[in-house]
Amino acid sequence: MTWLFCLSTLVILSTIFVTGIRYEPNWASIDSRPIPAWYDEGKLGIFIHFGVFSVPSAGFNSQVGWFWYYWKTLKLPAYVDFMKNNYRSDFTYADFAKDFTAEFFDANQWAKILNSSGADYVVFTSKHAEGFTNWPSNISFNWNSMALGPKRDIVGELMAAIRGKTKLHFGLYHCLYEWFNPLYIRDKGNNWQTRDFVTKKALPGLYEIVKTYKPDIVWSDGDYEAPDTYWNSTGFLAWLYNDSPVKDIVVTNDRWGIGANCTHGGVWTCRDRYLPGKLQAHKWVNAMTIDRQSWGFRRNADLSQYLTIEEILAIFVQTVSCGGNMLMNVGPQKDGIIAPIFEERLGQLGQWLSVNGDAIRGTRPWTTQNDTLAPTVWYTKKSNMIYAIVLNWPKTDTLRLAAPVPSTSTRVGLLGYTGEPFQYTNPSTGGINITIPPIPVNKMPCQWAWVLTFTNLQNA
Amino acid sequence: MTWLFCLSTLVILSTIFVTGIRYEPNWASIDSRPIPAWYDEGKLGIFIHFGVFSVPSAGFNSQVGWFWYYWKTLKLPAYVDFMKNNYRSDFTYADFAKDFTAEFFDANQWAKILNSSGADYVVFTSKHAEGFTNWPSNISFNWNSMALGPKRDIVGELMAAIRGKTKLHFGLYHCLYEWFNPLYIRDKGNNWQTRDFVTKKALPGLYEIVKTYKPDIVWSDGDYEAPDTYWNSTGFLAWLYNDSPVKDIVVTNDRWGIGANCTHGGVWTCRDRYLPGKLQAHKWVNAMTIDRQSWGFRRNADLSQYLTIEEILAIFVQTVSCGGNMLMNVGPQKDGIIAPIFEERLGQLGQWLSVNGDAIRGTRPWTTQNDTLAPTVWYTKKSNMIYAIVLNWPKTDTLRLAAPVPSTSTRVGLLGYTGEPFQYTNPSTGGINITIPPIPVNKMPCQWAWVLTFTNLQNA
Amino acid sequence: MTWLFCLSTLVILSTIFVTGIRYEPNWASIDSRPIPAWYDEGKLGIFIHFGVFSVPSAGFNSQVGWFWYYWKTLKLPAYVDFMKNNYRSDFTYADFAKDFTAEFFDANQWAKILNSSGADYVVFTSKHAEGFTNWPSNISFNWNSMALGPKRDIVGELMAAIRGKTKLHFGLYHCLYEWFNPLYIRDKGNNWQTRDFVTKKALPGLYEIVKTYKPDIVWSDGDYEAPDTYWNSTGFLAWLYNDSPVKDIVVTNDRWGIGANCTHGGVWTCRDRYLPGKLQAHKWVNAMTIDRQSWGFRRNADLSQYLTIEEILAIFVQTVSCGGNMLMNVGPQKDGIIAPIFEERLGQLGQWLSVNGDAIRGTRPWTTQNDTLAPTVWYTKKSNMIYAIVLNWPKTDTLRLAAPVPSTSTRVGLLGYTGEPFQYTNPSTGGINITIPPIPVNKMPCQWAWVLTFTNLQNA
Amino acid sequence: MTWLFCLSTLVILSTIFVTGIRYEPNWASIDSRPIPAWYDEGKLGIFIHFGVFSVPSAGFNSQVGWFWYYWKTLKLPAYVDFMKNNYRSDFTYADFAKDFTAEFFDANQWAKILNSSGADYVVFTSKHAEGFTNWPSNISFNWNSMALGPKRDIVGELMAAIRGKTKLHFGLYHCLYEWFNPLYIRDKGNNWQTRDFVTKKALPGLYEIVKTYKPDIVWSDGDYEAPDTYWNSTGFLAWLYNDSPVKDIVVTNDRWGIGANCTHGGVWTCRDRYLPGKLQAHKWVNAMTIDRQSWGFRRNADLSQYLTIEEILAIFVQTVSCGGNMLMNVGPQKDGIIAPIFEERLGQLGQWLSVNGDAIRGTRPWTTQNDTLAPTVWYTKKSNMIYAIVLNWPKTDTLRLAAPVPSTSTRVGLLGYTGEPFQYTNPSTGGINITIPPIPVNKMPCQWAWVLTFTNLQNA
Repeated sequence: MTWLFCLSTLVILSTIFVTGIRYEPNWASIDSRPIPAWYDEGKLGIFIHFGVFSVPSAGFNSQVGWFWYYWKTLKLPAYVDFMKNNYRSDFTYADFAKDFTAEFFDANQWAKILNSSGADYVVFTSKHAEGFTNWPSNISFNWNSMALGPKRDIVGELMAAIRGKTKLHFGLYHCLYEWFNPLYIRDKGNNWQTRDFVTKKALPGLYEIVKTYKPDIVWSDGDYEAPDTYWNSTGFLAWLYNDSPVKDIVVTNDRWGIGANCTHGGVWTCRDRYLPGKLQAHKWVNAMTIDRQSWGFRRNADLSQYLTIEEILAIFVQTVSCGGNMLMNVGPQKDGIIAPIFEERLGQLGQWLSVNGDAIRGTRPWTTQNDTLAPTVWYTKKSNMIYAIVLNWPKTDTLRLAAPVPSTSTRVGLLGYTGEPFQYTNPSTGGINITIPPIPVNKMPCQWAWVLTFTNLQNA
Repeated sequence: MTWLFCLSTLVILSTIFVTGIRYEPNWASIDSRPIPAWYDEGKLGIFIHFGVFSVPSAGFNSQVGWFWYYWKTLKLPAYVDFMKNNYRSDFTYADFAKDFTAEFFDANQWAKILNSSGADYVVFTSKHAEGFTNWPSNISFNWNSMALGPKRDIVGELMAAIRGKTKLHFGLYHCLYEWFNPLYIRDKGNNWQTRDFVTKKALPGLYEIVKTYKPDIVWSDGDYEAPDTYWNSTGFLAWLYNDSPVKDIVVTNDRWGIGANCTHGGVWTCRDRYLPGKLQAHKWVNAMTIDRQSWGFRRNADLSQYLTIEEILAIFVQTVSCGGNMLMNVGPQKDGIIAPIFEERLGQLGQWLSVNGDAIRGTRPWTTQNDTLAPTVWYTKKSNMIYAIVLNWPKTDTLRLAAPVPSTSTRVGLLGYTGEPFQYTNPSTGGINITIPPIPVNKMPCQWAWVLTFTNLQNA
Repeated sequence: MTWLFCLSTLVILSTIFVTGIRYEPNWASIDSRPIPAWYDEGKLGIFIHFGVFSVPSAGFNSQVGWFWYYWKTLKLPAYVDFMKNNYRSDFTYADFAKDFTAEFFDANQWAKILNSSGADYVVFTSKHAEGFTNWPSNISFNWNSMALGPKRDIVGELMAAIRGKTKLHFGLYHCLYEWFNPLYIRDKGNNWQTRDFVTKKALPGLYEIVKTYKPDIVWSDGDYEAPDTYWNSTGFLAWLYNDSPVKDIVVTNDRWGIGANCTHGGVWTCRDRYLPGKLQAHKWVNAMTIDRQSWGFRRNADLSQYLTIEEILAIFVQTVSCGGNMLMNVGPQKDGIIAPIFEERLGQLGQWLSVNGDAIRGTRPWTTQNDTLAPTVWYTKKSNMIYAIVLNWPKTDTLRLAAPVPSTSTRVGLLGYTGEPFQYTNPSTGGINITIPPIPVNKMPCQWAWVLTFTNLQNA
Repeated sequence: MTWLFCLSTLVILSTIFVTGIRYEPNWASIDSRPIPAWYDEGKLGIFIHFGVFSVPSAGFNSQVGWFWYYWKTLKLPAYVDFMKNNYRSDFTYADFAKDFTAEFFDANQWAKILNSSGADYVVFTSKHAEGFTNWPSNISFNWNSMALGPKRDIVGELMAAIRGKTKLHFGLYHCLYEWFNPLYIRDKGNNWQTRDFVTKKALPGLYEIVKTYKPDIVWSDGDYEAPDTYWNSTGFLAWLYNDSPVKDIVVTNDRWGIGANCTHGGVWTCRDRYLPGKLQAHKWVNAMTIDRQSWGFRRNADLSQYLTIEEILAIFVQTVSCGGNMLMNVGPQKDGIIAPIFEERLGQLGQWLSVNGDAIRGTRPWTTQNDTLAPTVWYTKKSNMIYAIVLNWPKTDTLRLAAPVPSTSTRVGLLGYTGEPFQYTNPSTGGINITIPPIPVNKMPCQWAWVLTFTNLQNA
């Protein structure tokens, strides 16, 4: 399986775009487009959820981005009570917009913080299911970030800063559906046989952001209720791939209608926090959040609700090892601040990558992902180098691994460590037996998740 | 002229609708539709301007309804300064909506107050040029009275109260254009060659209110910038007259595009406060306001800015005498209160009509409108009765009028007066010479604008 | 009785202040001070209630000034519901202050409107029972009009305008108690045996306004719960009369502690809207409101809640006839606007006084107040002229009065009427029998409440 | 010196309170009171700054607690601009109070987070220089946390939680002065010769909190402008020490008037972030903040503005070694949340103390504080145990220290380490030469600042 996979991966990630190919508005054709190579290289993206939901910024065992829905549709008691206790009785979701002040939003500061993570790209919520556009859209009159709240083109400012101050790719998240848009509700009531919402709002908005901001990623959110035929997703994608200003570079995902995810489109997101634990046959991404529950900032999340850097690394390493990218989310505050706890986690990850990036960036899955003898060790590969990422420092001075088969010229190193190569033996039962030296704390290259390097393995 | 006119008037106001006639979407056909008779009967309508503009509610030698335009487009210093002094620097017009509270809006109370004026119909602003809909429109997501401000269906509540509690006809004002809607601005930039705004917002909204609220009057506001072909006004009107639920009863006006007013459509409004002073060949209406300058409520208007009842009556009498209806505007406060000064004027007019209504309701213009010898006397006619409405009580005990020619059986009375008929002579130079008796103040039928009645005039 | 009264009145109203008299802090001494003559002359004052209560501005069969008390102490359902429906659940009265914007407050405009009433003085609420000071008090930190709401010295601006632009006297209302001040509540809990509130807030504030604004009237409100000994009212008054900057001109009232009103102090207010209907032995004032129920502006009062000019005149005439002054209240809106309906009533009263002022200003009660044969006729007197104020125009052409006894040289006139003196006879049963001529409406000097003048009566 | 000091320390910290001693209201007497022993034991307190300043929550190279002063008195451009850009032009500091919502303030959650730090006591701002009381004070009408903002008794709730859920001592910070209180300004203008502010506000408030909340610490802030005689500080302290409900347990500080700090009172705070680096002759405290600049929460502080745990430990260790306590500040958000970055630092410190607390709690300064050969090693002592706190792990496998002189039975250990005692030699030049074994990272007892223990030193 894996050998075949590697071949197919090479094809999929090919940067060789044959001139003159035009995609047809059907899944067979759309799905045939290779994913641009740049996307696979960096492995790490930062997701940013920012919107009117950042105003209540309160989640109760659930995420803030769906505040409106939890409050008004599901009527979850915690949300209903929160509103009852803190707002006048006729307060509506639309009323939140006036407090989406963003007075401290500084796109250059965001660029600096995001860049400190060592990521390769950013994906920003241009519009969530609330329908509020973070850019001055032509088709969201007085329900956009220029008319209300920030009074600024958030998407535009962020794009300029990301592209002007960093080498990060800039992507846009766009939610197709809007729970409470009357046109959407009416189309839904008509069992998706009418498409007023699509023609008047969803697609015009999508074309608008692609033409205006030329995003490197179009991250669609639409695996909910309506089929891709309602959205005319293949029609849009054909245009995106054939004629849009980003046709050669753009990467998309799979949430183009109910049933499309994990099946069609570009990179597969499958479900939130997707972490299959084994190699996947199609390029995938683990979209996850530092806040364990919420994508939008959640004021009422205490420290225990944030992933530790150890947890983040465990997820990241496993993701990359299995062929995925990780898209790790931060939720800025309504005032535009990225809270220091997020900055701390991003910086810790960046610090780790500055030592161990070779084991991540530009790698591909190896034949083995997870060592059968050492369950917290995950492998990646680049050229002939095999990396074994060790999440927990070995409890004894010997580490027994099943997957690497040393040759006579194999060398075992520790990324960032300036000492001697590690000694090892070649046990008769296979694999390798590595002697772990007692390295003092101040000689260790990093604090968490160390990377063993193997050159000249028999089975590299 | 006048005899012919009267004939044509009979035709125009005919209630006999020939079954099977269908109007074509061109002005010749649209203009051929007779105005429903009910409209001409009552003469008096009450106009109501209520919207987000009721929040700033400040006009500076200009009207409140155009606040946004004066502030942001014309940048009139008084408006700019008002905003600078009272709001944070990035305040937008959209921000006003949250304070459009309408907490005291009580449609039944409005119905009572409006009814006290003796009017025959009401015209309410469903949507002004700001684009905010006073009903929960499908095509104004989060910029309508259900999502923001009142959190209520203002149009619906008012319709129910007017129809449930009074015999007033219920009409809706609808502004076609929206100065700041990006789609409108884009169409304008394209010299009206694109019509996105019309197809996505203006017409869908117009169809929505007609189907939902079945207004007896569709009072369009669109004599501004764009031609009627942009709006497809004749197309809408053809539907309105042929197929809408109000096709038989509905009355429209003339503001269907630049150049249409005073030329096409239903009743002609020509310009605001139209008061031509002589008989018009087409049914017209004088749309005017009790506040001398503003249609929306203007907090900073002192008493001198309100028409006195004497002034209102002078305008009304002249209007009716010349064949017009008067549509007199009140502007409720943002909290939904109709200020007592408006209630006072409405009640005064109602009180006057309770005495003198016979000289107004159901009348038609006479051969003479304004007496050449007594310039503050205006005439109306009903059957064989001629009414001379005397705005100022005669300074001497003789009133000389040029128009009425008494016969031997002519009687001259005073509406509401229980005393003897007035004496008169028949001067050789024509007209009539009436002896005005010294009626004590407590015997007078009303306080302002008295009506002399003439029966059996030679020239009735 | 009346002859003696007139003598005592002369004493009380004497302008002769004997140099060197010092008042003692006891009622016998305080009460012995004559009321400055200026006060009695003009008869009419305008009361103004403006404060944080102007923000909710909602009264439900009760007055707005006590909003806080009705809501939180009495918990009247209408108030509780109003708050529940329109404010977040933890909203406090203190929260209202931020919306006491007064952005249109223009003291010169107020001066003009107040002056149009023909009044002689103004009394303004410097501090109501809510404790909020309308001036930047030293002892109301962050609960005053400079720190919150208007951000202005309302008292100071109004004083400057009234004194700079009109001849009106300027007085200040000051509420001694503050329902919710913890010091007051604690003193009350101690059965008024502690006086922390008095020494830390009430009296320092009172001294502050007298020294700063030198009011011509100190209108105390304190006939509630606590005795005058708690307030040390006589101590303050002794200072006010002996040593304050207004010692010679100042007029006070009687609300200096429970039981003091109608008994001690300066002018007696007795109770609100006091209208005894017969001559009083002590100078009194009828403090009443144009709004039938409320002192503070009440948004939810419709026109029927405002006294008509006819009703105002009936009250005014009766008040003056019986020796009282009328202090008629208007409640400006929270934005600083005096609503046009108030301006209309003030102007109507001013217009009436411009014709009939001779029957009011500078007059004193006559021997008879109310005619026994004509119950809507009330008398006043000035020098040898007797005025009969006729509230309703006589239904017949003869007016029979019981009180005036004509001499042979008596003349009967109508104030403002340019026609002949009225004929009369001297019936054997006493009084006078006046022939009322049929004056046409345009010859009448005013629209409501006409004044007959009698010279050379036998019993003048 | 140090031996004498230790004796005197024993006296000062004595828990033996001689019954019947009464303190006089003069510094000699006040200063003679021993500091209660509990205070010295725990070494660590958590300071909390929470108030109206938490609303703007913006500091520009300066601290948030002085926002009002920087804005209005110093008119620092960054503050003036921030207000101009984000608030209406007449916005006052008092206006901030309405947004001091504290909707997520949960005293039990605070107690849990504070307790996680391993601290021994808490000091909370009952009232800062803005004058706003965080309890429902009798003498701060409508400028307190019950009337505005939280609508809760913050002090009371926190006291109940701290005392009910933890073993932490509960102390209150109280600012004597209030920059903008008119009484204070007037007293200042009178060169402190009048004392209205003291008698009406400052002292009544101080008595109120002591009587109501019985704080274990009264942390006065008053080393600014006015002398202690103005404040009558010794009078208050005599009452506090003689007759208050906390007379036996209470600890105070030294900020009782200009010139008093570092000289009089209880524990000396000297200046903010006081860190003398050598042993002090009087019990002192280092009041410092995790945010490098601000005491109140500062939204616009990025991660670099927060002390790292390494920096905190360096300060803490140096402070304790030199006889001080550390009072480390956190600033909760206006919504009542303690930001996760604070929680992380508190937890890291608590985690460190759980391993190394023996070297801190109950210790006293040793004869040496800072090793002359190893400048990042600081000493403490408890009984016969000497602790050397090593901030940086030795770069080589030998650690040479100057201060400890081993005896033949000396043992050298590492707190929390389960391995063998460390080998050492006794160099001829004095001190000790310790061999540091190569402990693998997963055997290390903690991540930062390790503690060597010495038993049976010659010079313990």
